Amino acid sequence: MIDETTTLYLALVHHPVMNKNREVIGSAVTNLDIHDIARAGRTYGVAKYFIVSPYEDQHALVTELLDHWLKGHGARYNPARKSALERVSLEWSVAGVVESLTAELGKKPLVIATSAASQGKTIDFSALREKLGKNEPVLLLFGTAHGLAPEIMQKSDYSLPPILGGTSYNHLSVRSAAAIIIDRLLGS
Amino acid sequence: MIDETTTLYLALVHHPVMNKNREVIGSAVTNLDIHDIARAGRTYGVAKYFIVSPYEDQHALVTELLDHWLKGHGARYNPARKSALERVSLEWSVAGVVESLTAELGKKPLVIATSAASQGKTIDFSALREKLGKNEPVLLLFGTAHGLAPEIMQKSDYSLPPILGGTSYNHLSVRSAAAIIIDRLLGS
Repeated sequence: MIDETTTLYLALVHHPVMNKNREVIGSAVTNLDIHDIARAGRTYGVAKYFIVSPYEDQHALVTELLDHWLKGHGARYNPARKSALERVSLEWSVAGVVESLTAELGKKPLVIATSAASQGKTIDFSALREKLGKNEPVLLLFGTAHGLAPEIMQKSDYSLPPILGGTSYNHLSVRSAAAIIIDRLLGS
Repeated sequence: MIDETTTLYLALVHHPVMNKNREVIGSAVTNLDIHDIARAGRTYGVAKYFIVSPYEDQHALVTELLDHWLKGHGARYNPARKSALERVSLEWSVAGVVESLTAELGKKPLVIATSAASQGKTIDFSALREKLGKNEPVLLLFGTAHGLAPEIMQKSDYSLPPILGGTSYNHLSVRSAAAIIIDRLLGS
């Protein structure tokens, strides 16, 4: 694991996602989604963490935030935060993430959707963990708002089973779900 | 597991915690710490989630937040959030949490500190998981800011080992650390 990097890639999707009524929408970027998932990713050696939004104003906002922590006062004040946010990239669409990774890696990554509900084409945690153990590139998609839109589910190679905690309640924040999933895939 | 409850209790400590320079301070309550950890707790059947602060203004703030989601517009808009936040309680100190739980349970819970650094008196995840499997009451303490102060460490029965992700980086948010720890203790 040279420079502490695995072959796991993350994307946090802000469009197309669903609202409460399962209509397809675009969501706004949440500051702590960037920080928390970048820090969890860095802890486990996630190679890159993509923030996906089709909106120019959201790109401007994320760019400003990243500049603060990578080049501005934040970089000097908190070098650990810098080290996590260095692996964050902005993209316009999920297709754009897949294209950019395919170009970089010379092969298409395995694209895995996550969801709080059971989806088709499930791959279990241990099978995916094994692929990562063999250094196969894996792109995990996380949905904001009420989750990834069906079109993203359909275009993914597989989906992970929902995280169940032994109760009927399944409303984890995307920050918590991402942390748990990364730990299950890469934790010791 | 009647009414979806285990014997795991959580406390998020805002005093005494440490700042960057390892001085003992009190920290401000963060909105998303309450929501994220309450939702993760509810998912896994955590019995109660205590917010610990010695400051009256912070109690007023948390009370206002809880009222919105438990009794106000939030309760009607998002019943799932209500169900998570119903298990949140405010306390003035860690000692107060232990007293109130001891009174409620008729015995002192096992008090477990968490930390990003190795501490003394470690209990590993599987041993603690086994205790929870036998319905022994366990109180997990999480520190905000730069972690629990030494006096809290010393008064705890045990500490959990830090969460390592296979890299030298260990700067998880308390929200992510709590989610991962709860999953390791109660997840299937």
